[in-house]
Amino acid sequence: MASLAKQTERKPEGGELSLIRYIRSRTAAGAAKAPALGIGDDCALIRPRAGQQLAVTTDLTVCGRHFRLDWHTPESVGHRALARGLSDLAAMGARPAAAFLSLGLPREFAKPTAAGWPSSWVGRFLDGLLALAQIHQTPLAGGDVSETPVPLADIVLMGSVPHGKAMLRSTARPGDLLYVTGTLGGGAAALPHFDRLSRGGVNGLSPARIPKGIAPLLDRHLSPQPRIAQGLVLRSKRMASAAMDMSDGLSSDLAHICEESNVAAEVEAALLPIHPGATVEYALHGGDDYELLFTAHPNTRMPKAIAGIPITKIGRIVAKHRGQPQISVITAQCAAPLLAEGWEHFR
Amino acid sequence: MASLAKQTERKPEGGELSLIRYIRSRTAAGAAKAPALGIGDDCALIRPRAGQQLAVTTDLTVCGRHFRLDWHTPESVGHRALARGLSDLAAMGARPAAAFLSLGLPREFAKPTAAGWPSSWVGRFLDGLLALAQIHQTPLAGGDVSETPVPLADIVLMGSVPHGKAMLRSTARPGDLLYVTGTLGGGAAALPHFDRLSRGGVNGLSPARIPKGIAPLLDRHLSPQPRIAQGLVLRSKRMASAAMDMSDGLSSDLAHICEESNVAAEVEAALLPIHPGATVEYALHGGDDYELLFTAHPNTRMPKAIAGIPITKIGRIVAKHRGQPQISVITAQCAAPLLAEGWEHFR
Repeated sequence: MASLAKQTERKPEGGELSLIRYIRSRTAAGAAKAPALGIGDDCALIRPRAGQQLAVTTDLTVCGRHFRLDWHTPESVGHRALARGLSDLAAMGARPAAAFLSLGLPREFAKPTAAGWPSSWVGRFLDGLLALAQIHQTPLAGGDVSETPVPLADIVLMGSVPHGKAMLRSTARPGDLLYVTGTLGGGAAALPHFDRLSRGGVNGLSPARIPKGIAPLLDRHLSPQPRIAQGLVLRSKRMASAAMDMSDGLSSDLAHICEESNVAAEVEAALLPIHPGATVEYALHGGDDYELLFTAHPNTRMPKAIAGIPITKIGRIVAKHRGQPQISVITAQCAAPLLAEGWEHFR
Repeated sequence: MASLAKQTERKPEGGELSLIRYIRSRTAAGAAKAPALGIGDDCALIRPRAGQQLAVTTDLTVCGRHFRLDWHTPESVGHRALARGLSDLAAMGARPAAAFLSLGLPREFAKPTAAGWPSSWVGRFLDGLLALAQIHQTPLAGGDVSETPVPLADIVLMGSVPHGKAMLRSTARPGDLLYVTGTLGGGAAALPHFDRLSRGGVNGLSPARIPKGIAPLLDRHLSPQPRIAQGLVLRSKRMASAAMDMSDGLSSDLAHICEESNVAAEVEAALLPIHPGATVEYALHGGDDYELLFTAHPNTRMPKAIAGIPITKIGRIVAKHRGQPQISVITAQCAAPLLAEGWEHFR
């Protein structure tokens, strides 16, 4: 669209083509396994192996909604943007195959610094994104860039899963036990600390400002680890009857399993694996944990840990009855309805 | 992410889940062929047929950059957002298989009107998007929504193409002839008319305001038709040696073919199929035409039209020589270097 904006500013170092060339140079160097054709043509070409389906997920990450410039380092923004999609693949038991990045940046973010692209906000964003991509052997296969009022990134992730074997949200049955990987509440319990410690700026909270005692909690928020390895084991050993990832908070995410499977659920508060520094409220309603929430037949032998991450039983699936709450939380004192109070946009 | 924004506003009719339910209801009704699993789980599941590769493209469409609320009707915004990706598939000779939509909306756009969702901006946006999707049998298989400062849409398109047969940008050879589908310059020549006729507002230029004489020119801009059928013929009959789609303008897009193929090109100004109401300048540099630009061996017999759209020879590919322009434009008077003056972001 040639005429919606004036094209008078022609500094040699900036511009879309320079940015695309920089991103392309980074991905060429960092790709563990390249797709058939990557950045530089109209489309990327991808070929799943015989007998495999492609799992596809898109996640839109927007400044002011999913991250804050004064809280999150550029590396964390890139890491978290990719982690959201990888976590969706983990929930299905899919193996990552390729990522696509649509990047929206205000003009002042789409420029190299005097020292070049690597030290710019977008250079550091790519550092975080590509480091996590490398861990999970996920090449960046394409994408798009545009000027936007605030930084944002839409990430597409594609993974492979044997045909008909993906773990779904819709297959939980009454009697199944309810499990989670890792710990809950840490992702959200970190937020008040960011609020308290931040001094503004666009490169996030400086690590030097973070008291040593809460550094692990804040790191839990800044660098969530998608449970790819755990999802692959749960799927390949047929241990889970249903699964999803927890991005919005247990109360909201469990409601999705209940709706899609047409069942109800009971959560035992005393069983919740609460992250150090979090509370039961954060564990029930806080988002950003990116753990897996899954169900299993009661006869399934569940290990204490998978690939080094603890597995914890937190409740059970029960039949849905009219007039009964979709989710109950059981404490020593009583059973009470658990309302979805996790994250929802436009609320 | 539970705590980045207050969650006090709980109007029954709005919110992310209500919007997602509405989008889901629209796609369930409109899908010509459903993917294995669509909206409602962590990922969509897609299975290409044996011997096929998947072509994948993402296009970020942003208010103020790719469209204007006072110029483009919501239907046109949806149509054009999808057309951009379909055009990329056409350029490769791929058959559309599935689309994904990541939709960013300001809060006031993510609400139904008093009459419900269908008459809202997002309802009309989906009308335009899904009508084009229906024509090209492209189910909407998933996506994401978020609040953003301005409306924006990132569209992912996946298409299938026989393994190793996709048309590429990088395979043009000296001696090949240069062709385009359809007409050039109309997409950009419409813009001054929008500028002149617009009276503000968020639902685009009212059709009632458009003088009958220029309605076809403005429609050319509002509803570009991706050349899927032409791409499929060019690819399956092996008529093109290289191809791409023209979104940024001939001078910019031809430069990509020259760079990727390591060749130069000559364009004959007198041969350009200029759209009625456009000029040679619009045809050379204007974007938004979404025609195919392709090359063919000089021995290839090229029809006058493919699937009803004229095919026009506009020049040739020549060897690249140091000190010679990458692209020359030849007129009756002289040959002059053609500099890329099409659309580039962050300029």
